[in-house]
Order: sequence, then structure tokens, then C-alpha cells
Amino acid sequence: MTGAARLYHFALDPASRQARLALAEKGAAFEPVPASPWEADSALAALNPAGLPPVLEHEDEGGMLRICGSRAILEYLEEISPEPALLPGGPAERAETRRLIDWFDRKYDGEVNAWLLHEKIEKRLQGLGAPDPAAIRAGRDALRWHLDYVGALLETREGLAGPRFSLADIAAAAHLSCADYLGEAPWDSCPPAKAWYQRIKCRPSFRAILADRLPGLAPADGYQDLDF
Amino acid sequence: MTGAARLYHFALDPASRQARLALAEKGAAFEPVPASPWEADSALAALNPAGLPPVLEHEDEGGMLRICGSRAILEYLEEISPEPALLPGGPAERAETRRLIDWFDRKYDGEVNAWLLHEKIEKRLQGLGAPDPAAIRAGRDALRWHLDYVGALLETREGLAGPRFSLADIAAAAHLSCADYLGEAPWDSCPPAKAWYQRIKCRPSFRAILADRLPGLAPADGYQDLDF
Repeated sequence: MTGAARLYHFALDPASRQARLALAEKGAAFEPVPASPWEADSALAALNPAGLPPVLEHEDEGGMLRICGSRAILEYLEEISPEPALLPGGPAERAETRRLIDWFDRKYDGEVNAWLLHEKIEKRLQGLGAPDPAAIRAGRDALRWHLDYVGALLETREGLAGPRFSLADIAAAAHLSCADYLGEAPWDSCPPAKAWYQRIKCRPSFRAILADRLPGLAPADGYQDLDF
Repeated sequence: MTGAARLYHFALDPASRQARLALAEKGAAFEPVPASPWEADSALAALNPAGLPPVLEHEDEGGMLRICGSRAILEYLEEISPEPALLPGGPAERAETRRLIDWFDRKYDGEVNAWLLHEKIEKRLQGLGAPDPAAIRAGRDALRWHLDYVGALLETREGLAGPRFSLADIAAAAHLSCADYLGEAPWDSCPPAKAWYQRIKCRPSFRAILADRLPGLAPADGYQDLDF
């Protein structure tokens, strides 16, 4: 990718992490700009009508392009910078990759993030009171099930969507790493998923993710360890 | 698109409608197979790990491919059948198209469908009791705001994402047409959105959508009228 790029992102936002990981995997230099969707004067509201991260600004000879949301950003990067391919393979593998991104962005998001991230991050940052233990339990139960699903996929594949690393791995790792920051990912309950996450953590693209620190909310033990 | 295709869909599911419209716009012959995610013996559970429509089965010389979810189906159709383009233009227009599909699939879905379709369709079909008036009001308020947003986009564009008809128009029409079936789309509050929907309704791809009838739940007056 040529030209200057700036990514507005929130550290523990799974969609932002997908964009950061994809940019890093493409070897694209970019300036990360922290932005919180909860701040009243958030730059995000002026950049993205949905008021959410991530937003990518990419400047090349044709001018400045602003791209909102991980769905648009991931496909854009693949179009303008096809190598290394993050939607590899033929139509079947690409369809499976997109099915799994959607699985994490909608199903996992509604069944896990809506409970765990909402209770433990959004409520804290927005001053909405103490976490609700029942909601946290619901998120934990769903997360265990999703981790088992990841394990089941890995029984026949090296990557989540097929033989190769793809945006499906990026999406899954982006979501699961947020739960892991909170100490909520029960890796030992699913050894194949744990081995997969260990491989992902070793990728250079993951270094910035592992260095994330949210003010007032330290990561759980093991979050940044490659051997956890 | 060559080969045989079968689409498992639910009539009032916005994701299914996106797939049906895209297939029709591509001029692809396909067998529509009604499938409800709520039936215990639903074929969907065996076809899509998420248990949701739409699922496209496409058979060509390479064998049978099964593609789950509108995100994967729309991109698949664009890859194997590029003309007529439903992701037209350059990277900017395509990114804007994907931003808007995501807007409807996530933001509109959570702010409108989660209230209106849940209260008026899911509850009814699953025997979950009477609709909650407060929930319906919340959905209606959000829908009015989303319609205004559509109107604002159309101030500078012929299509929702740019000068041309695209998957953004398909996504928006798929979602709004479900509210319209229920008589919940306040078209007269936003004349530009109404004029846009009138144009969409006249497209041959929309005929099957307008002919949909849910057993026990007739469409609102005007649903199928091109002049409403």
C-alpha cells in the first residue's frame, strides 16, 4: 500500500483490531489514532456517520479516501493491496472466510461481546455502574461454546477458513483477544484453539495488539505472553 | 451465473431478501426454498452452523458450493458474475457501498429490526406473546431517523452509495421492505426516500419480494403497489 494512512481506532474494539491486524499483515505503514466512541467530543462522530471505529484515512495520488467500518476496510485493503492475500484461495475458501468474519462480527458479537465487553469495559468507561454477574455468566457460557466451535473448525484445517491464514483468523483473533485482555478466554478448555491462538500471537502483526493498555484496566496475566 | 442454484430463505428476513435481490439483478435462475430458522426441524440448522438464512447452494462444473449468509453470498455473486456490477465504481464507491450494507446489517438491524421485526414477526411465529408497545415505539422512532438518513444520502446521489444502483440500495431496500410489509415505513415523512423506494419497487428484481405473503400475516395496504 502506498501513500499515507491514518487509522482511528479503539484499543479494545474487535472491529478496530481487525483493521490494525490486516494493515500490519499487508505491511502497510499507518498512524494509529486512538479514538473512543464514548467521548462527547469524539473525532469519530465527525468521521463516521455511525460514530464508531475503525475509520481509515488513506491518502495517495488520487486524493484522500475515508473508509468507515471493518467490513469496508478489510475488503478495500484486499482490493488495493492483494499481496499477501488475506482472502486467499478460490470462491469456496473466500466464501468460507467471509462467513466466519460475519460469524464473529454478528453472532459472537451478540452472544459474547454484548455481555462481556459491555459489562466490563463499556460500563466502566461510561460510568454505568457495576457489572451484572448474570450478564457476565451469559457471556462466559457463550464464549466457551464459541471456543469449542473454533476448535471443531481446526480439526480439519490449519487456518480457520481453510488451509491458509486469512481474514477469518484475523477476525476471530481480534474478537477473542479482547476477551483475553479481560482474562475471560478459557483457553485450557480447548487445546486446539489455544494452539491456534499461540501461533497467531507469534505473528509480527500481533505485537501492537499485545502492547495495548487501557488506562485504569490492566490486561490479565498472560495476555501478552506468547507462552500462556 | 451458470449451473443450478438453490436459495434457502425466509420471506421477511432482510438478509435473505438481499440475496434474492442480488441473484435476480444478476439474472441468475435459482430455486427459492422457504426455510424458517424457528422450526425445530429446520433444514437451515443442517446447512448453516449459524442456523440462519440465507444459504445459497450453487452447482457448477466444479461441484456443489454452499455459501452461508448474505455477506458471503453477495461478494460471491460479484466475484463469479461481475456483470451487471452491484459493487460498481472504484475503491471509494465500493467502500461506501460496503459501509452502507454494514450500516443496515448492524446499525439498522439493532435499532429497528431488533424491535419491530422481533415484536411483530418473531414473537408471533414463535408464540412468544403479544408485542410490547414500548419496544415498537423504539423501533418506529429509530426507523424514522434511518429514513431521514437515507433521504440525506439521496440529496447528492442517485443511488445510495453513489451515482449508480448498488448493493447498498439492495441492502437498504431489503431491510426497509420488511418494515413496509408490516406497514411501519413512514414514507410520507421523507419524500426523497419514498421516490427512491418507488424506483426500486419498479425493478423486475423486486417482483418476487412484492409477491411475498407470510401465512397469517397479510402485508399492509400499499406494500405491493408501485404507486403508494
